[in-house]
Amino acid sequence: VHLSQISLIALPNFPLVKPGDDLAELILTSLFSVDLSLEDGDILVIAQKIVSKAEGRLVRLRDVEPSLQACEIASAIHKDPRAIEVVLRDSNAIIRIGSNVLIVEQRLGFICANAGVDRSNVPPANGDDVVTLLPLDPDATAQAIRNRLHARTGQSVGVIINDSHGRPWRRGTVGVAIGVAGLEAVADLRGQPDLFGYKLQHTEVGLADQVASAASLLMGQADEGRPVILARGVPHRAGEGSAREILRPKEMDLFR
Amino acid sequence: VHLSQISLIALPNFPLVKPGDDLAELILTSLFSVDLSLEDGDILVIAQKIVSKAEGRLVRLRDVEPSLQACEIASAIHKDPRAIEVVLRDSNAIIRIGSNVLIVEQRLGFICANAGVDRSNVPPANGDDVVTLLPLDPDATAQAIRNRLHARTGQSVGVIINDSHGRPWRRGTVGVAIGVAGLEAVADLRGQPDLFGYKLQHTEVGLADQVASAASLLMGQADEGRPVILARGVPHRAGEGSAREILRPKEMDLFR
Repeated sequence: VHLSQISLIALPNFPLVKPGDDLAELILTSLFSVDLSLEDGDILVIAQKIVSKAEGRLVRLRDVEPSLQACEIASAIHKDPRAIEVVLRDSNAIIRIGSNVLIVEQRLGFICANAGVDRSNVPPANGDDVVTLLPLDPDATAQAIRNRLHARTGQSVGVIINDSHGRPWRRGTVGVAIGVAGLEAVADLRGQPDLFGYKLQHTEVGLADQVASAASLLMGQADEGRPVILARGVPHRAGEGSAREILRPKEMDLFR
Repeated sequence: VHLSQISLIALPNFPLVKPGDDLAELILTSLFSVDLSLEDGDILVIAQKIVSKAEGRLVRLRDVEPSLQACEIASAIHKDPRAIEVVLRDSNAIIRIGSNVLIVEQRLGFICANAGVDRSNVPPANGDDVVTLLPLDPDATAQAIRNRLHARTGQSVGVIINDSHGRPWRRGTVGVAIGVAGLEAVADLRGQPDLFGYKLQHTEVGLADQVASAASLLMGQADEGRPVILARGVPHRAGEGSAREILRPKEMDLFR
């Protein structure tokens, strides 16, 4: 009997990532260590944090001079003004200021808390506080990793870089895609008939985000032990793909 | 080598569901047909649509008398006033009126489009248009199915009833949990130290929603062939659990 099935596998023995590391090579080494081979149609989901580290997207707070605006916001929400300054520099616009969070349109266009700037899981450099920024161009990074893996294995895989975002109305963060290559990030089923011949209406599906959420289930939060997940069997169409296509145009959004 | 792994399996040979059907029995019959057994810690994800059908949550539009408010809204967004009337009756409040969608707080507290009222995949009754409403109490239904499965198999499984919701800022619907039993819907990792001893801050994880999204990847949209997914290997804590706990309190929400 053929069962429709998806397997999510955490890549084992993944080392701590340092600036300059080659993630495609680390992925292949991990797969090789347990005799796993990539297959056409596999999707690799990579935690944003290790992409940021590999790309050296680290800022020491003691090197940051906060602006007046950063100081005012920091005072209002009880945060380090230098951390707020880093957030503002990586943001296009402030969307909301909450009691202890800043919701912004991050430079890449995503609406998220604190522009994805994060303090956790970064080793202090000489006792300094260090924060990570989102990758410069996660779509390009995903594409580069996809190309490298194709060159090394001959297999065409999708690559998703995921992050955890909070949401309006619902408690708890969920994995979302901030970089995509090799698959349609949003699968458009509009106009396909349903079982009884009706035209479906609202069937643009957040495919890459759902894969990102599925992978987050295995990644966990409190450690970096499982930063790369292999997803096998996800029904999808190969395509160029990008996380940019997930962004809802401003004028079509009721919650800006 | 032990790999951290999640398997998602679509229950095969699932019949079309009719009002009065016993979903727990249909699940067991499907599992039995391919020699699959439930295991402690498994999570079953069940599509909202078949729960609504089993519970007879169907409304024939020709039986609906639209109110003045429904007619006004329907005219503004070019919808059937009777469908809008059904939406309003199942809503606590209107959150936004878009160009072709009504965002409401549904009776159960979820913010969603059109109160989850849906026309697709319901067979016309004598040529009439029929719509489905959300289940009356999906947490209770999830609990009842969990209890039935425990009584029949001795295994303690989690049950999630999922639906597809659109989101602000991001294109594409994603699976979310509207009914939960047997697992913590929101996993609270606040205060757990990260690798370098920092206290984590924003680590309330939308566990049930992420499982709901993962299952949606296999359910598809344009047919009802795969309305139940078995998720095995999801790291989680068993618990009472409910989808109500996912609702963010109004006063803690910046986007109402």
